[in-house]
Parts: sequence; structure tokens; C-alpha cells
Amino acid sequence: MASLLLSRRDLEFLLYEWLDVCALTSRERYADHSRETFDAALELSEQIATRHFAPHNKKNDTQEPTFDGERVHIIPEVKEALRVFGESGLIASTMDHEVGGGQLPSVVADACFAWFQAANVGTAAYPFLTMGNANLVLAHGSKEQIDTYVRPMVEGRFLGTMCLSEPQAGSSLADVRTRAERQEDGTYRLFGNKMWISGGEHELSENIVHLVLARTLDGPAGVKGLSLFIVPKVLVREDGAPGERNDVVLAGLNHKMGYRGTTNTLLNFGEGVHRPGGAPGAVGYLVGEENRGLSYMFHMMNEARIGVGLGATALGYTGYLHALDYARTRPQGRPLAGKDPAAPQVPILAHADVRRMLLAQKAYVEGALALTLYCGRLLDEQHTGATPEARAEAKLLLDVLTPIAKSWPSQWCLEANSLAIQVHGGYGYTREYNVEQFYRDNRLNPIHEGTHGIHGLDLLGRKVVMDGGAGLRLLVERVTATTARAAGAGGEAAEYGARLDTAVRRAVAVTQRLWSTGDPETALANASVYLEAVGHVVVAWMWLEQLLAAASGTEAVHEGKRGACRYFFRHELPKTDAQFSLLESLDRTAVDLAEDAF
Amino acid sequence: MASLLLSRRDLEFLLYEWLDVCALTSRERYADHSRETFDAALELSEQIATRHFAPHNKKNDTQEPTFDGERVHIIPEVKEALRVFGESGLIASTMDHEVGGGQLPSVVADACFAWFQAANVGTAAYPFLTMGNANLVLAHGSKEQIDTYVRPMVEGRFLGTMCLSEPQAGSSLADVRTRAERQEDGTYRLFGNKMWISGGEHELSENIVHLVLARTLDGPAGVKGLSLFIVPKVLVREDGAPGERNDVVLAGLNHKMGYRGTTNTLLNFGEGVHRPGGAPGAVGYLVGEENRGLSYMFHMMNEARIGVGLGATALGYTGYLHALDYARTRPQGRPLAGKDPAAPQVPILAHADVRRMLLAQKAYVEGALALTLYCGRLLDEQHTGATPEARAEAKLLLDVLTPIAKSWPSQWCLEANSLAIQVHGGYGYTREYNVEQFYRDNRLNPIHEGTHGIHGLDLLGRKVVMDGGAGLRLLVERVTATTARAAGAGGEAAEYGARLDTAVRRAVAVTQRLWSTGDPETALANASVYLEAVGHVVVAWMWLEQLLAAASGTEAVHEGKRGACRYFFRHELPKTDAQFSLLESLDRTAVDLAEDAF
Repeated sequence: MASLLLSRRDLEFLLYEWLDVCALTSRERYADHSRETFDAALELSEQIATRHFAPHNKKNDTQEPTFDGERVHIIPEVKEALRVFGESGLIASTMDHEVGGGQLPSVVADACFAWFQAANVGTAAYPFLTMGNANLVLAHGSKEQIDTYVRPMVEGRFLGTMCLSEPQAGSSLADVRTRAERQEDGTYRLFGNKMWISGGEHELSENIVHLVLARTLDGPAGVKGLSLFIVPKVLVREDGAPGERNDVVLAGLNHKMGYRGTTNTLLNFGEGVHRPGGAPGAVGYLVGEENRGLSYMFHMMNEARIGVGLGATALGYTGYLHALDYARTRPQGRPLAGKDPAAPQVPILAHADVRRMLLAQKAYVEGALALTLYCGRLLDEQHTGATPEARAEAKLLLDVLTPIAKSWPSQWCLEANSLAIQVHGGYGYTREYNVEQFYRDNRLNPIHEGTHGIHGLDLLGRKVVMDGGAGLRLLVERVTATTARAAGAGGEAAEYGARLDTAVRRAVAVTQRLWSTGDPETALANASVYLEAVGHVVVAWMWLEQLLAAASGTEAVHEGKRGACRYFFRHELPKTDAQFSLLESLDRTAVDLAEDAF
Repeated sequence: MASLLLSRRDLEFLLYEWLDVCALTSRERYADHSRETFDAALELSEQIATRHFAPHNKKNDTQEPTFDGERVHIIPEVKEALRVFGESGLIASTMDHEVGGGQLPSVVADACFAWFQAANVGTAAYPFLTMGNANLVLAHGSKEQIDTYVRPMVEGRFLGTMCLSEPQAGSSLADVRTRAERQEDGTYRLFGNKMWISGGEHELSENIVHLVLARTLDGPAGVKGLSLFIVPKVLVREDGAPGERNDVVLAGLNHKMGYRGTTNTLLNFGEGVHRPGGAPGAVGYLVGEENRGLSYMFHMMNEARIGVGLGATALGYTGYLHALDYARTRPQGRPLAGKDPAAPQVPILAHADVRRMLLAQKAYVEGALALTLYCGRLLDEQHTGATPEARAEAKLLLDVLTPIAKSWPSQWCLEANSLAIQVHGGYGYTREYNVEQFYRDNRLNPIHEGTHGIHGLDLLGRKVVMDGGAGLRLLVERVTATTARAAGAGGEAAEYGARLDTAVRRAVAVTQRLWSTGDPETALANASVYLEAVGHVVVAWMWLEQLLAAASGTEAVHEGKRGACRYFFRHELPKTDAQFSLLESLDRTAVDLAEDAF
């Protein structure tokens, strides 16, 4: 039976028939790799995800972590899954050989990780957060910090967190208040509260490595005064053995609508519950230099944000496959042309509206997967491109695409999950089936790692205007290269290419129009609408790319790509007309309404 | 503090300033009523909803009904709330005086009921289902049936259900298999299984009156062979005292994503667990004539469907008020113009994107409330209009609007709930706050009482083509009457009226184009898109109506109506352009795709 997590055939199409990732093996960093090692990593991921992650996905939801005031209790399947994952070496798949990594291209690693997110986002979050944490320390930490914290993470013995938000500082990191007092020995003592910390407390690993944003006493106000600290749950002695308990204490768990398998915590630092070395405060170790904390975080933010987009995609994808499976097997009703009640009922896949809902899901989830893997490919290019120019270009394009790669799947693969429920009818609304959980899990994605609104501001207020608009110009250049190929291909591709040309020209004109006033309040009043419209244009581009890659294919997968591309250009891309018109009108309806009139 | 359930001021605007419901009191049926009695009913509803329904809404969710194999356990607050509701007389508010009813206009009763749905949909479902049941027996049952079953329902002693679906027959009622065997004494014995029965088993009332669709042995196949039966849980003796247990047995509870407070059941009829009178089968009493069951059901379906739309609206509305309250009080970030981190944070209502999300919610929920109350007003006109022509016109327009009044709020007030979560950020995703429950509760509404897809087929395949398109013509006539008034008013109203004229002309042209081929498969291929587009046009009409009614108003409520109307015409109505273009293209993308290409 075909997997209901992801489509292996689609992954192969995207990686090999479209993105030609085998070409990467000619680069020094990936010289040990080949189609065989890529396939082996994909196979291993599918196997572990299917055998060790998927089976307890529902249990993660129905038996969420609990806190008895002393300890956090998590179902044992999570620890076992993490043990298997840790032993697989996947956690270090993209890292350097010298720290025990596999130097797998990011684009392939992303495809691997999607299996785990499709199988069980709750459990997958622990190692994925740990990877983000480890990559950050690898990039900016000292050799000693890498040896002490990263190596055990790579070995699967430690897990990591990212501690940014506070109860009064969510989207507004300028308001982070956790303070770090420098000690004579070069270490710091931290005091403060951190909110929404995933994986903040548990007994799944020997230690938890918290990466904490805090401000030193003499730093500047706002985000420029934030520094980054390693704050382990248990202090690590010089020989690597566990030392004293650090003063990091769980204040409580947050109880979420979905994504319940991941503990989400409020942590107190330096409240005096423990006093390492007898002194107050949680012991912290500065990463890099003071006051550069946020820039280090941003360094890794692209990856974290694309990871969110990928997770949203994986949830949408598994929901689609569940709905498709149900539609093939559930008999209900009869064709319009033959309503003879004596005739047997037909599978609901025969009904036009069910097909429309399935094709919409396919267009969303395969479009999102193409976008997120394309971003993974850009990350590889950024790190290993043949020339400095190629690397800089890849980074620039990735900067522009990141808010879209985070937000578009979060919006549209959630919509796919809603459609998957709808295909199931009443059954889809019950917890006896799986799709309602995907929908609840996926609703987190437009919120964390920067809300939808924040990414609208990031795209329109920063990414498309930075460097004199170089990022937007590069995006247009790349899209136009595709449409030129489409024009050469003729037929349907040429037709869609022409439409995409029109849409992308309009996006540029709208961007110029929005900034023509010089008034940021007006320009950014509907930044989320801009994010959504440009997102649709970018995903239309991804669909045209897939159409071209599938052009000569004769398998069902290729026919499916043609159908979903057609759907996207007929049903989806035209939605951007109204959005661009609204933006062109410099609409201020919401901004100008009196506060008491809401 | 203002209520977070609904806005009393908005209800007053809609009922008195717009729909002029006081004019109804000149009609004989409503002669005992006045603005004072309407206000008293609204006040009573708000009070009971606030004091007895809202406080256990979250508990209904976290401690859903359980079945121990013998009995269903429900938190005691539900029974207490139903007792208070029963004593209030609200259950019979629209019924005739002769059965103990209040002869309240439906439009006012709907406004009353919305308070309960905003406060606690789970508990409110029990009396609302009972009302639908009672109204059906009043319309088609015998005097004896009314005395035996309706009166105790009116008195709050019995509750009722509607038993249509079966495991193999959800949307396809032609496939209902439950059979009814006629007995010599004129009663029937029923055998079969009924699925998704809300309120199907509990101990909240002395008895449960099931209304069951089943087929007699000699009836025709399909929906034409369905008859309607009263099947009480406990047989009622001639003196009204409880008799033997009927053979209706709970097979299991369905566990839903939301709407958890309402038991949802699989019921077995005639399985032999009980044998009333020693014979097999559940005892049933025919309502009206054999083979007319579905037509009786359809008689009440308009009300039930508008009730679903109203419930969706109420959930969207309370979510909006929660989000607005949060936005006024949650400090986060600073204005674009002054990002000084030393300045205090501002309430998030100051941010453009939060305002946009709030205004979108306002446009959705107030637009939906206007539409559902307008339908309630049409129902009153259908029953008490001055002339037979006026009554027939009201019925015709109501027939056309019903699929929209059911589906549009189910789609867009759910979207409002999603935006309410988004305004709350991470907090909105937690069960510590209320909005995530509204979102889960509301997700049911596009599914029950006919799925979204079924209503698309109903609107495009039946309602706009019946009687040679008379319903659509009437709708256009009514919309055009409004736009003519808007033209006379000038200014913004005239501008929006012109846009609405264009949109409604386009809807007509698209309808003709779709049916021009004579091929139902092509015409109906995107019936859901048609439903959504026409729905937006209808709600734009509702907004223009509100704008005109608010024109001379100087209060915040009037300014709010102007702002939300502006939002709807700028942000929402233009979405229909792409939908109508798609429909004009006679798109068959989903219908034509090969089955194995999905």
C-alpha cells in the first residue's frame, strides 16, 4: 500500500527530474554522495518515520505532556522514537564531517525531514529544534562550546531549545527583558522569564541546551542590546559529566489546540530554586560577542522559517493523501447523469466537487513542497555555489523567498487540511479519523517563527526594498527565465508563462506604487495582502517549473503535475488580480477607522 | 463591561434601524408584541445565555459526554441550563398561542437564539434541535401527536432529535435503509442504524422524541420512498405517563474536534435489546402520509439551515469580540513612525495588520448576521405577509437565499475565528483562551445540514433554475431596488451600488452561460465556486443595505457600519471577479483529470 505520509514518487520527481540534485555531487562538499546515498537517506527517513513516528502521532495528541509540579510526563514512545532518530545520524545529516555530520545537501535533507513532520510533528519538533540550535552554535560558538554542547546533540544525548519570546515580548523582541550579568570568570548569570519555549522541559535527554536571548546590563536598548547565551539545564563539568542543576525552572506548560506532542513551556531563569555554585542566577555562556545575539539568530532564521513552511507542507501533504485514499474507497451517491437509486453507489472521487477539493489540495501541497525544496536548493547554492557571485545571488533570492516559504504553506496547506476534512464529511470532523488533528496541528504554523503579519512586513518593508530592490529584481529575472523557456515550449506552458509574466510585472508595478508615496504607514497598511499575492505569483512560478519538468513525462505523476498546474493557473493565480488592485488603490480603510468604531 | 458574546447595539441597529421589525406588530399574529416585548425577549436571552450557558462552555469542551456502556454522562451544568431555558418559554417563542407559544416573529427569535449559540453551541443544540422537531410535528403531525410529544417539548420535559443519516447514507439520503414495518394497529416497527444523531442519547430530559426517516416495505426506491416517524425513547402511555422502554439503543458516541458539548451518536433501532409489547422492532408512529417524509423534512430544512448559518455567525461574532477586547488591552510593539524602544508599547489595535484582521472579522460576522436576520424576516413575511403574492415572493426569495445563508457564514465566520486566533498570537492557539474552541466548534458548520458542496449543487442546480429562473430574477429585483436607493443617496453608497449592479449582472450572465451548454456535468463542475461568488454578492448587498440604514447615524455603531461596508466593497467583493471568470470559462480541470493522476 502506498504511504499516506508523503509521495515518494513526487519527491523523486522534484529532486531528480526537476531540481537535478545529483548535479550537486560534483561539488567537493558532496563528493561522497550519489543518487544512491540520497535514495538511502530518503528510504531510511521514510522507514523510521513510518515505523517509529507515525504510530504514536494520535497518542501524542490524546495524551499530551503533563506536569505534576515536579516532573513532565511524556508518553514513552517519544523517547524511543528519538533514540532511533538519534542513532540514525540524521540529526547531523547536513553538518560537516569534522563534527560527525553527513554533508548531505540541504535540499535532500529537507525531503528527508518532511517524512518526520508528516508522520508526527509533535515528536519531530524535538530533534528539529536541536538541529537549529546546534547549527547556530556551530556557526558562532567557540570550539569548546561545540565540543561541550554540539557533539552530544549530534550523538542524540542532548536536546536543544531556542528561547526568544517572553510574556510581554512576542513579536516585539525589542522588549526582551531577561538580563545577563557578567561574572568575573567570563560566564554570565541570567534572570528572567521565557514564554512559548518548545521542548523547554522534559526527561527525554540527558540535558537540555537552551539558547537564550538576554540583555547585558550595559547594552543599548531595543534589539541592538540582545546577546545570545548557552544555558544548559544541567551544568556540564570539564570532563563532560553532568554537574549541578542550573537555575532554569519550569513555571508551567501551555496547552495548545494542536501540536500537542511537543511540550511548550514558560521557563524561569534565575528564580533561586537552584543556586549553582551557591550564587543566584542561571549560569550562561556567551555565544560570540555581546549585543550581536539577534544577528546570530537571524543567521539561522531562514532555515527555521523554511522548516516551518516544510512542516506545514508535510501536514498538508499527509492530509491530502488521507483524503485521496478516503475518496477512492468511500461509496456515496451516484453520477449526475444516472441517479437510479437501484444502481450501486460510486466512490466519492467520482463527484466533481470532491475532485475539485482534491485537486486544490494537490496544487497547494505539491506547490508548497516545490517551493520549500527550491529554497533548500538555494541554501546549498549559498554555501557551495561555484562562484562568490552565485553564492551571493542564492542568498539574496533566499532572503526574498523566505517570508513566502514560511507563510504560503502555513496558509494554504492549512486550507488543504480543511479541505481534507471536508472530503471526509462528518467522519473528518471526528477524532476517530486523522485529518482533524492535522488541521489543528497546522494552525500553529501561521503564528510561530514570526506571524503572518510580521512576514508581510518583512517582505514588503524590508526584503523587496533592500539593496535598492536587488532581491525583487533577481526574483523577476529568475521567473522570467522560466517563462522564456515556457514560451519556447509552446502550448499550455507558453500560455501560462504569458500569464505569469503579466502577474510578475504587476507585482513589480504594485511594489513601486506602494512605495511611491514615501509613507510607510500607507505602503504597509495591507502588507499581508501583498505577502499573499506575491506568494501566489511565486507558487505559480513553481508550478510552471514543474510543468516544464513534467513536459515529456508519460507517467501518472506527470499527468498529475499537468492537472495541478492547470488548476493553479485557472483557479488560483487569478485571485491575485483583486489583491493587486486593492494594493494599487493604497487602501487605508482599516488604518483610518476610528478606534471606537470597531 | 460590554458583552463578549454579541453586540446588543448591533442587534438593535439591525432589527430596529434597518429591518424595522416594529412594523410587524401591526399584523394580527404579532398584535400582542411591541418594541418593549421584543427588547424583553432579547434581554432575557442575553441574561440566560450569559448566566447559564456561557459559564460552562469551556467545561463542555474539556469534559465532553462519555458513555460507560450503560449510560451517557454529561456535566450537570447542561441540565441546569436547559431547565432554565425550558422555564423561560423561549423554546416556544415563535409557536402559536394555542400550543403555549409566544408568536414572536422569527427575526426577533433568531436574534434571541444567537445569544445562546454565541454562549455555548454545545448546550444550545439540545433545545434548538427540539424546536426543529416540534415545528415539524406541529406542521405535519396529528393532534394526538402534538398533544403527546410537542406539548412536553414546549414545557421543557422532552427533548427531540432528527434522525436522517446512516453510516452508508450521509449526503445520499436515497440510500437510507432503515425499514419500517406497518402493524395491524397502525403503528410501525423500525429496524436500522442512524448515524450522526445529535442529542441521540442522554438523561437530560424525561424522554427523547426521535424523528426518523425510514422506508416502508412497499415504497418506491430512492428518496421518494422515505417516510417520517416519531420514535420515542420511552413509549408514552395514553395518560401521558412513561411506559415501556422503546428499542432505540445507543451504539456509540462520536468524538468530534469541536462542538463537543452536544452528544453525537450512532443509534440502533430494533436490535432487540428491548422488546416493547414483546415484539421485535422499535415502535414508530407515522407522521402525515407514507412516502412523503423527505418533503416534510424539507419543509423545515430552510429553518434548520438558517439556524446553522446563525450558529456559525454567533461563533464568529463572539470570536470577533474576544479578539477586539484582546487587541484593545494587549500591549506589543510600537508604531511604525516611532520605534524608540524606550517608549512604552502600544495596544496591538494600533497596528495596521491587527486592524485589518479585526475589520475583516467585523465585515464577515456583521454581514452574516444581517443575512441570517434578513432570512428570518423573510420567514415572517412568508407566514404573515399581507397578500398571497407577498407570501409567495418571500418564500421564493428565501428558497434562493437559504443555501447561501447556511454556507456563507459557515465559511467566512470560520475564517473570522481563524483571524481571532491570529490576533491573539500564540495565546490564541492555547486552550487557556477561548478563541481556539470557537474555531473548532465552527468547523462543523460547513459539514452538517448539507455540506458546502451539496449547497453549491442546490443553489446552481436547483434554486436559480427552478420556475424558469424566477428566484434569481426576484433576487436581482431586490438587489436592484437597493442599488437604486443607493444611487439616490449619492457619495460612497452610489459608488458601491454601481459596483454591486455590475456584480449582480455578472452573476446572472454567468448563470446563463453555465446552463447554456445543456450539460449538467459542465455546468455544475464548479458549483461550490458559484455558491461562494454569489454569496459574496449577496453579502455585499447586505452591506449596502446596512450602509444606507446607517447613513444618517452619528454614533460609533454607524461609523463602524460605514467602515466595514467600505472594507467589504474594497477587499471582498472584488474577489468575485476571478470566480466569475473561472465559471465563464466552463472549466473542467478537476472533472477531466484521470483518476490515477490525483
